[in-house]
Amino acid sequence: MRKRIITLGEVMMRFSTPDHERFVQARNYDIQFGGAEANVAVSLAQWHHEVSHICAFPDNDMGKAAIRYLRSTGVDTSHVFLGPGRMGLYFLENGAMQRASKIIYDRFDSVFSHYTGREKDWEQVFEGVDWFHWTGITPAISASAAALCLDILKAANKHGVKVSGDINYRRNLWQYGQSPLDILPELIGYTHVVIAGLTDFANCMDIHESDYIVACEKAREAYPSVEKIATTERGSISSSHNTLKGQLWNGRELLESIEYDMPRIVDRVGGGDAFMAGLIHGLLSKEDNEALEFAVAASVLKHSIPGDVNFVSEDEVDQLVRGENVGKLLR
Amino acid sequence: MRKRIITLGEVMMRFSTPDHERFVQARNYDIQFGGAEANVAVSLAQWHHEVSHICAFPDNDMGKAAIRYLRSTGVDTSHVFLGPGRMGLYFLENGAMQRASKIIYDRFDSVFSHYTGREKDWEQVFEGVDWFHWTGITPAISASAAALCLDILKAANKHGVKVSGDINYRRNLWQYGQSPLDILPELIGYTHVVIAGLTDFANCMDIHESDYIVACEKAREAYPSVEKIATTERGSISSSHNTLKGQLWNGRELLESIEYDMPRIVDRVGGGDAFMAGLIHGLLSKEDNEALEFAVAASVLKHSIPGDVNFVSEDEVDQLVRGENVGKLLR
Amino acid sequence: MRKRIITLGEVMMRFSTPDHERFVQARNYDIQFGGAEANVAVSLAQWHHEVSHICAFPDNDMGKAAIRYLRSTGVDTSHVFLGPGRMGLYFLENGAMQRASKIIYDRFDSVFSHYTGREKDWEQVFEGVDWFHWTGITPAISASAAALCLDILKAANKHGVKVSGDINYRRNLWQYGQSPLDILPELIGYTHVVIAGLTDFANCMDIHESDYIVACEKAREAYPSVEKIATTERGSISSSHNTLKGQLWNGRELLESIEYDMPRIVDRVGGGDAFMAGLIHGLLSKEDNEALEFAVAASVLKHSIPGDVNFVSEDEVDQLVRGENVGKLLR
Amino acid sequence: MRKRIITLGEVMMRFSTPDHERFVQARNYDIQFGGAEANVAVSLAQWHHEVSHICAFPDNDMGKAAIRYLRSTGVDTSHVFLGPGRMGLYFLENGAMQRASKIIYDRFDSVFSHYTGREKDWEQVFEGVDWFHWTGITPAISASAAALCLDILKAANKHGVKVSGDINYRRNLWQYGQSPLDILPELIGYTHVVIAGLTDFANCMDIHESDYIVACEKAREAYPSVEKIATTERGSISSSHNTLKGQLWNGRELLESIEYDMPRIVDRVGGGDAFMAGLIHGLLSKEDNEALEFAVAASVLKHSIPGDVNFVSEDEVDQLVRGENVGKLLR
Amino acid sequence: MRKRIITLGEVMMRFSTPDHERFVQARNYDIQFGGAEANVAVSLAQWHHEVSHICAFPDNDMGKAAIRYLRSTGVDTSHVFLGPGRMGLYFLENGAMQRASKIIYDRFDSVFSHYTGREKDWEQVFEGVDWFHWTGITPAISASAAALCLDILKAANKHGVKVSGDINYRRNLWQYGQSPLDILPELIGYTHVVIAGLTDFANCMDIHESDYIVACEKAREAYPSVEKIATTERGSISSSHNTLKGQLWNGRELLESIEYDMPRIVDRVGGGDAFMAGLIHGLLSKEDNEALEFAVAASVLKHSIPGDVNFVSEDEVDQLVRGENVGKLLR
Amino acid sequence: MRKRIITLGEVMMRFSTPDHERFVQARNYDIQFGGAEANVAVSLAQWHHEVSHICAFPDNDMGKAAIRYLRSTGVDTSHVFLGPGRMGLYFLENGAMQRASKIIYDRFDSVFSHYTGREKDWEQVFEGVDWFHWTGITPAISASAAALCLDILKAANKHGVKVSGDINYRRNLWQYGQSPLDILPELIGYTHVVIAGLTDFANCMDIHESDYIVACEKAREAYPSVEKIATTERGSISSSHNTLKGQLWNGRELLESIEYDMPRIVDRVGGGDAFMAGLIHGLLSKEDNEALEFAVAASVLKHSIPGDVNFVSEDEVDQLVRGENVGKLLR
Repeated sequence: MRKRIITLGEVMMRFSTPDHERFVQARNYDIQFGGAEANVAVSLAQWHHEVSHICAFPDNDMGKAAIRYLRSTGVDTSHVFLGPGRMGLYFLENGAMQRASKIIYDRFDSVFSHYTGREKDWEQVFEGVDWFHWTGITPAISASAAALCLDILKAANKHGVKVSGDINYRRNLWQYGQSPLDILPELIGYTHVVIAGLTDFANCMDIHESDYIVACEKAREAYPSVEKIATTERGSISSSHNTLKGQLWNGRELLESIEYDMPRIVDRVGGGDAFMAGLIHGLLSKEDNEALEFAVAASVLKHSIPGDVNFVSEDEVDQLVRGENVGKLLR
Repeated sequence: MRKRIITLGEVMMRFSTPDHERFVQARNYDIQFGGAEANVAVSLAQWHHEVSHICAFPDNDMGKAAIRYLRSTGVDTSHVFLGPGRMGLYFLENGAMQRASKIIYDRFDSVFSHYTGREKDWEQVFEGVDWFHWTGITPAISASAAALCLDILKAANKHGVKVSGDINYRRNLWQYGQSPLDILPELIGYTHVVIAGLTDFANCMDIHESDYIVACEKAREAYPSVEKIATTERGSISSSHNTLKGQLWNGRELLESIEYDMPRIVDRVGGGDAFMAGLIHGLLSKEDNEALEFAVAASVLKHSIPGDVNFVSEDEVDQLVRGENVGKLLR
Repeated sequence: MRKRIITLGEVMMRFSTPDHERFVQARNYDIQFGGAEANVAVSLAQWHHEVSHICAFPDNDMGKAAIRYLRSTGVDTSHVFLGPGRMGLYFLENGAMQRASKIIYDRFDSVFSHYTGREKDWEQVFEGVDWFHWTGITPAISASAAALCLDILKAANKHGVKVSGDINYRRNLWQYGQSPLDILPELIGYTHVVIAGLTDFANCMDIHESDYIVACEKAREAYPSVEKIATTERGSISSSHNTLKGQLWNGRELLESIEYDMPRIVDRVGGGDAFMAGLIHGLLSKEDNEALEFAVAASVLKHSIPGDVNFVSEDEVDQLVRGENVGKLLR
Repeated sequence: MRKRIITLGEVMMRFSTPDHERFVQARNYDIQFGGAEANVAVSLAQWHHEVSHICAFPDNDMGKAAIRYLRSTGVDTSHVFLGPGRMGLYFLENGAMQRASKIIYDRFDSVFSHYTGREKDWEQVFEGVDWFHWTGITPAISASAAALCLDILKAANKHGVKVSGDINYRRNLWQYGQSPLDILPELIGYTHVVIAGLTDFANCMDIHESDYIVACEKAREAYPSVEKIATTERGSISSSHNTLKGQLWNGRELLESIEYDMPRIVDRVGGGDAFMAGLIHGLLSKEDNEALEFAVAASVLKHSIPGDVNFVSEDEVDQLVRGENVGKLLR
Repeated sequence: MRKRIITLGEVMMRFSTPDHERFVQARNYDIQFGGAEANVAVSLAQWHHEVSHICAFPDNDMGKAAIRYLRSTGVDTSHVFLGPGRMGLYFLENGAMQRASKIIYDRFDSVFSHYTGREKDWEQVFEGVDWFHWTGITPAISASAAALCLDILKAANKHGVKVSGDINYRRNLWQYGQSPLDILPELIGYTHVVIAGLTDFANCMDIHESDYIVACEKAREAYPSVEKIATTERGSISSSHNTLKGQLWNGRELLESIEYDMPRIVDRVGGGDAFMAGLIHGLLSKEDNEALEFAVAASVLKHSIPGDVNFVSEDEVDQLVRGENVGKLLR
Repeated sequence: MRKRIITLGEVMMRFSTPDHERFVQARNYDIQFGGAEANVAVSLAQWHHEVSHICAFPDNDMGKAAIRYLRSTGVDTSHVFLGPGRMGLYFLENGAMQRASKIIYDRFDSVFSHYTGREKDWEQVFEGVDWFHWTGITPAISASAAALCLDILKAANKHGVKVSGDINYRRNLWQYGQSPLDILPELIGYTHVVIAGLTDFANCMDIHESDYIVACEKAREAYPSVEKIATTERGSISSSHNTLKGQLWNGRELLESIEYDMPRIVDRVGGGDAFMAGLIHGLLSKEDNEALEFAVAASVLKHSIPGDVNFVSEDEVDQLVRGENVGKLLR
């Protein structure tokens, strides 16, 4: 069933070196666009939801190219702000074998980092919306981005919109004078489905536990809005070979998905966002355990596709859940 | 020893997305040419046989490009017909990991599908020829293609030419009002070496058995011309990882090849055709079990090469059969 | 600690087919530069040593491009000779799966093969130098190259420079009328650290042993200058999957490194040179066992990088030795 | 001022050879999408009109890629029909110097050619619409496409929508048994702004005149709906060098634009569509002579851009009309 | 009318920098094959003559790739010798504007330079042949190549084969101890149609005249076999802009073609060979003046095509002679 | 004669769209490095001067790639500072025909903009140096860059180093609160050779004249250090077609170069820097009028080369000055 979903977050231009070249070797870069929340938005739009993404771009050709990208995927761009300034960028060097992949971010001082959203009536925007998704990256970027996130969360809650938040703690980001614990607890207080691993619990919710179920229960106590908590477990055998499984705590029990072997990864960036999108889609229409399996299978397929985005159909994910057509040649 | 071999079948222009991109991502396509029977022809020409391929192309630059391709490989093109109409095309999206590869065919109404071959004196063409090869794809394309196949089989049989046929049942093709069982039995009646798996037996010969040897024996009874029947067994662990072995029933026993592990496939399209070519080459000069091992090793090497065609020398196949130089760096 | 290092050897222009294409398929070639000794030089320059490379190029745009390459890596080119003649070339076809990789050399009659070095005062060049590195490729190229190598080794020994030599026996090279045993023993007599496997012992030192330690001890007796002998053991499961470990005999015992699994090799050319560079760097600053582990880890990382050269930092090698960041996504 | 505009016509996948290669040379094709009417739609969307395009695609990945393309440009795709069948294709070889450019169409039997539009209530679709655009290509494709065009023209006229039609006579298309004179006069009878040259007048309106003004006056008599008639005059000095000017007959006089010299054309495909889009945009907001100059300048800029589509802003066209920033480097 | 034609000459692998990059910038090279005489052969094969090319390649993958190239064009390769040694190479940097194009040859010591042709019965080869073509490049390469050329010319003359020779004086080639005047006069003595400019007359025939007609008359006196002499006049305004016309002295008068302007050259290499092929084709079937116009038009079209070879049909050349379709977009 | 030259200025990473694509079309970018002053440095190093460039890069892989670039050209990098922060970037869209080229700068807040140079003893750096070059871009970037420029100019003057400055007024840069007239006059006071057009005189020296000679004379009065003033005159017929000539006022008279027609420009970025480099090289070794002709010819050749940098030899420039080899094919 088609739902109305809104997402919030910066979309960056992504420059990746081709064919496993290192940064010092590359003479040309492949261009894509990506951002944790927009990656979620695109997956959901592809699965036939009505998705609108809130972000801000420079009012130049790079901003226009980013809008073209979002539009091409079917995501509504009527809440994209254009203003003076620079585009957030990131540079990706794909690793191989034991050699790690590297990302160099160049996103400080971007148009998004200065965007306040004050020109918008967020309450009106959220009328009739079914789901809102944010991540811990947005409040880490700048004080104004954190404030914007809070404004929007309040508006969403007023309209009874279901809210998911991917905590996604990144130590290098928080550079505007606040720590995660200064900011995130209030935001989590407006959130119902949380993606968090033990590191996120510790750094962003001040919950220091080594048992995941106990951590979830403590989170539920501290943040009564939180109904479900999920995470993925990735085994990094090499840059080209990972394993992946997912867990979902639904307030009663901890569900575990099957574990997938991924021995020839094409691009792992966006794998977590594909899981998040799968989980939102699953929770909107399936039982918890089916939702979790859908989320993990979606994430696995993402690893076979170049770029940030999971260009797979709902049908393809369902087939992987059922073990059909795996590695076939479909004619 | 150099033999004279003729093959029959459509050659299509192949458009494949680069670097595991999905169809919706690709901004340019790599161009190759391929077709099950021409792929066999090219392998055999490379192994120094005198091979001529019968097909039909549009009389435009795309047809000329296809002829250039065949000529470049040393296949004789004097039996290629040029006429008005369109080129058969196919589009290939290379899968990765659990994600399946996809082919979209766009071959209906091609020049080949309308080609009757009435302008040719096929009996004369087959004078002095040692081997003829066809597949079940040709009679599936159109009534005229089925009729052409039958005309040619009769001419070949008149001259005592050894005939191989790869049944290759493809459900989506048969769209001109006839079913495989209407057409194929008569054609198989002129054939001596058959490639068929259990699905092919069931759909194309009306032999419904689960034991391969029993099926072969029944086929021999129903089609007395058939001397040998072979098949490959592919294990599809993922798009990038298959296993492969071959089987050959020679009227007396079922021979089995060793099984190869193929953990990093470059391009699996044409793998079956490489097996077929290896088997024809083997049966023309080797013992049955050697022929089978040659066929499987040829097919394995094909999986390491981009495109439809198995650009390997006879020597390279022999080395793999002997386990020499596997994965080396030859200077 | 920054050391002064000199290396000697031909640098060739390398033409490699893209995307696992075979030579007969390729329509364009990627260009790199490489040569066993220069590959060592570049690694060492990258790890902050002061490295100068001795070689000779044609005095045309191809020679200029080669100099640009060396300069870009920080290797000093003041000992590069430019003269009339041709550039040494090599063509590389990357294998895949069971299909071997192939190199076609086209280096005969190059400027380097005629270079005598008589215009230089080598003794002056080696004042204050800490290390000199040569390989068995140089004396295999031509009589004048062998003589140059000997001249330089004498000059290096006069100044007490530590010398390493990678025996690197290549049967196809020795085509100017001398055999390795005519030439190499004298050169090894000026060398302190030798890279040699059992084949090298047999062909280049006339030591025919199947036990590595015994062979090392005999080498020590025959060549008293030799203090340490090392080698790598490569398991070639397929072109895409090797295993690697290293051994170092230090006159007292045979040290063995851990063994690495390399299941998705990007480019194995230069893997031995990366080991050599790692060993030199290690022996200049670490204990023997640490030096060996550094060398093997450096070699493993090389296999993840396209081209001849190991573009990795000292820090990245150290991390792999410690098992840190293996296959991660570093943000 | 933002207007509501609807366009109708097939969008094809375009395969063009790179770097002036001939069809027989190309080993890869660049992919774009194009179609005369959609090219107009995209220009108008870019200039901030609200544009919706009516067409039909196969319900497979190629159709999805076409929709992605339209969406990316901001054109609404809610009137795009998806059904079984094939995608219309065209192949482009870019000429150079005296060598002509070549297009091979492969569009027969496409989903669009079978599309009847009967599932739609066209009258409702045209409520509140300001402009509708069609070309003579659509009725040339098939009887059902001609019927669809007529249905839509009637619906548009009922709602008082202004209609433009680009006659665009293509002899090779009309292959379904009707001639242009059987079909087009009725369609022109619902049209207010016509693009036609003397050949179009002769073949599609049965007006055989050598004087353009006389031809226009006769057209006005025969088709009272027609208010304005325009055309471009292209001088083809070579494939790389054309001249271009435009003419607009507005019922009173024949306006002529300035003539542009285009000595280094990048891609001339879509040049006429860029003129058409410029004329529609101009007539919606400017005086006739300004509209004509805008149209010609838009067309000139198109020739500098690879692909079918005129990716230029309104501002850039205005600057060329004013002779500003021509050939500058804007920082 | 289809004629039997034989050509002789080295085919080299050509490496060209893309997009006007200089040699020191290029990171990849485009691969083609070319050679003055083979370029003629390919043109003639394309125009439906039965053409066989005599040359020699290394018996490795590079030689196989060269054979594939020749075969793809329809040139017979049964007189291609494969032996040990190296492939002749050349490197091309495309100029632009005032900057000259540069070729670096790397062809010394190639298999062709050592090829004697003694294993062949040349007299038998030339039975029934209509035309033989050679150039002054072959005897410039080595003593054995000069001897081979002479052997073949004698065999051709015995069978009354018409012979053309393109003198093509290249000062840098003659490095084996003979001068052009030592060798070429004897070869020209077996030749009927000569391509020579004033420099060629001076250096290769010892005829020092500034008037072309006088030079031709003197050549006729000195070499009674010579019936016709032709040349092209190229005006080099810039690397991208030349003019071209041709002249043909037929023993009676000097015919002059029209002059073409070529303001946007794609690739001028092979322009002279295209003229030569056009002249041979023309002289085999047309009046002298028509032959000359055909030759020049063929040469002009070559300048619009990347690579050494003139991929144009006879029809396209005829159209340019008639001034039809120049610079059009043919649909 | 080899001179010691120092240059100062930011080097940016340059991302350019391929094949005249617009920013909104590009899916990959070509990577180069460039900056007005470093472009001068590279030209001079190529012409065999000993050049060192002062700048600052981020201490990450992008900074390392920039250093690799500088080193590859032979420019000394011992005065390159590495520190935390971001790399300056610029994005280039190559225009065509009437469509202008566009640059989007993304250089604010770069490591260079914060670099103070306080860790260096500039006086020592300039010992024995022959020439120093700066441009008006550096003081426009930030207050600290302006201060650095002044510090260095003072040090250079103390050592009697000849100084050139390219005023290069860019209105969009000056954003740190100072205007050109606040800053530049002091810097010009330390400068002997100035590049300035009438706009530069007006905006940066407060000299408002329409006659170039008068402006020069006034500049000489106001800035007694100034000995020579030069400028180029560019005629922008289109993005692909410019004309260029140069002027040099030497305190006595205004010299004018010949004017070049440039009808097929490959890349005009860096054309002014090539003129500057040519002028410095010329003034160091030639008469004024020869220096001017050398400078203009160097600039013309730059327009034929992709990227910021003028990869031409001194010999090639001299040949163009003499009108030799223009547009030839050099073998």
